[in-house]
Amino acid sequence: MKNDPLYPTQDIIEAAHDRIKPYIHRTPILTSQTLDEISGAEIYFKCENFQKIGAFKARGGVNAVLSLASGEQERGIATHSSGNHAQAIAYAASVVGAKAYIVMPDNSPQVKVDAVRGYGAEVTFCKNTPEERQRIVDEVVARTGAVFVHPFNDYRVIAGQATATRELIEDSGVVFDTIMAPVGGGGLLSGTSLAAHYYSPLTKVIAGEPEGAADAVLSFKTGKIEKAPYVETIADGLLTYLGDKTLDIILRHVSDILTVSDNEIIAAMRLIWERMKIIVEPSCAVPLAALLKNKERFAGQKVGMILTGGNVDLGKLPF
Amino acid sequence: MKNDPLYPTQDIIEAAHDRIKPYIHRTPILTSQTLDEISGAEIYFKCENFQKIGAFKARGGVNAVLSLASGEQERGIATHSSGNHAQAIAYAASVVGAKAYIVMPDNSPQVKVDAVRGYGAEVTFCKNTPEERQRIVDEVVARTGAVFVHPFNDYRVIAGQATATRELIEDSGVVFDTIMAPVGGGGLLSGTSLAAHYYSPLTKVIAGEPEGAADAVLSFKTGKIEKAPYVETIADGLLTYLGDKTLDIILRHVSDILTVSDNEIIAAMRLIWERMKIIVEPSCAVPLAALLKNKERFAGQKVGMILTGGNVDLGKLPF
Repeated sequence: MKNDPLYPTQDIIEAAHDRIKPYIHRTPILTSQTLDEISGAEIYFKCENFQKIGAFKARGGVNAVLSLASGEQERGIATHSSGNHAQAIAYAASVVGAKAYIVMPDNSPQVKVDAVRGYGAEVTFCKNTPEERQRIVDEVVARTGAVFVHPFNDYRVIAGQATATRELIEDSGVVFDTIMAPVGGGGLLSGTSLAAHYYSPLTKVIAGEPEGAADAVLSFKTGKIEKAPYVETIADGLLTYLGDKTLDIILRHVSDILTVSDNEIIAAMRLIWERMKIIVEPSCAVPLAALLKNKERFAGQKVGMILTGGNVDLGKLPF
Repeated sequence: MKNDPLYPTQDIIEAAHDRIKPYIHRTPILTSQTLDEISGAEIYFKCENFQKIGAFKARGGVNAVLSLASGEQERGIATHSSGNHAQAIAYAASVVGAKAYIVMPDNSPQVKVDAVRGYGAEVTFCKNTPEERQRIVDEVVARTGAVFVHPFNDYRVIAGQATATRELIEDSGVVFDTIMAPVGGGGLLSGTSLAAHYYSPLTKVIAGEPEGAADAVLSFKTGKIEKAPYVETIADGLLTYLGDKTLDIILRHVSDILTVSDNEIIAAMRLIWERMKIIVEPSCAVPLAALLKNKERFAGQKVGMILTGGNVDLGKLPF
């Protein structure tokens, strides 16, 4: 927790940014007159769908792997992920020439599995529950001796994800009323809220979460790690519940968590595709869906929004 | 022809650029390490899919309408178009507060019809042949007194389209070996070749054309306006044949025209979607398809490529 030497201070986030810079894209910030008209807000989209591996998770993955001691890197890196963190670790391992062992749910989009293998990583499939993912990755670690990097409940990962918001604030030059991000396990959201706290302390951070994976909104109320009442959503990157490290930061630095239905997510995703001509995955559209559902709350505000990723299976679109 | 006072000289293209600047986006130039690896070339994509109305045609349309005398603007503007020029004229008319009358083929994508009506234009449908389009637009002009702006065989339109390549050359700072664009009626291709001629005289301009609308490649050989042997392609923006003005410029300034099949177009379109995370329409992927079909010819070259538009019907994707 906060007295942990790895807890992401502003200096630690700065160091993470310097460390990962050569291996990530400084992604553009896009605006859309049409979406501003539709929303009534002034939205600045930080386009992490254009990031290496097609998602912000390259930041956390690269920071975690580059932070390992060289002896640890030689043992290889293991993780579990529904897709983007898998690619991030596979990519980061390839950067340092290490072996990556990735446990993926057996319903992962084929395009994500192909991409992970494209970086030379070894894929092991598991059933798509948090418990099964952890059980199988424990087996992989026991078998290979690899170092486990958790997809979100890891301060090195959180510090890496924080760099997206650091860039959004610096590159836009805007003092945001609100910065929005989706929440799954909370790696991005906790990093976003820490970066806002350090670099733009008057900015509120508000998350969007699918109704079909509504654990974080519960945890936010009770202060404990909760599970979702039910798990069924198109936002396949947001299925997991929080960890102790992400919950701790979220409780301290996040203002609110708003839930949206799958239909609202699909409508927001389609708006981004049609109006901005860019490809985003369903999880990525959750904050815009939350804003559009609560227009009066954001009316006239300057809103920063992290577009998290663009890895969709074009053969399985929801429209 | 070249002695016509409207023929796009470098000064006329400069003036067009100054005229339209307030009403168009200065679109970004994107690169993709993955596509460079796949192609063996170094490709700079000028992203006119992010342009106003989602396509480069905003440039020509706005230039034509702003070039009209104010008395002419009051009569309204009429045109025919399979989609993007329709939106361009509708948008341009709305900029000057004029009425737009648009003749569209009855198989136009719904998203394009909706967008045209969104700018307040009046839509009349026709059968999808060049002859029928012209016949119906003649009727509209006779009925309304509107000024007809041809979608491509018009020097004001050609000068407007030329500004995309002017920006590509200036903003990239690259001396291109080749600049590529698709060819339908030749408005973009003739403008592209003029801009390359003036701003980067050592750069070759090479077009891509669908096999299922292969008229320009024939015209390029015979020096006359030819019709395609057959017309059937997914690249619905490229169905028409050249005009006398576009043919004249193309014969003087274009180096070659390469044809590609619909399967090659779809594969190139999918590559752009998956690897660059941006939305392009089938016509837009034709030059990349042509490059990938002729890799040895472009090996190691610096290639500028106009990504023409992103207006696809998400309900009718080819993959």
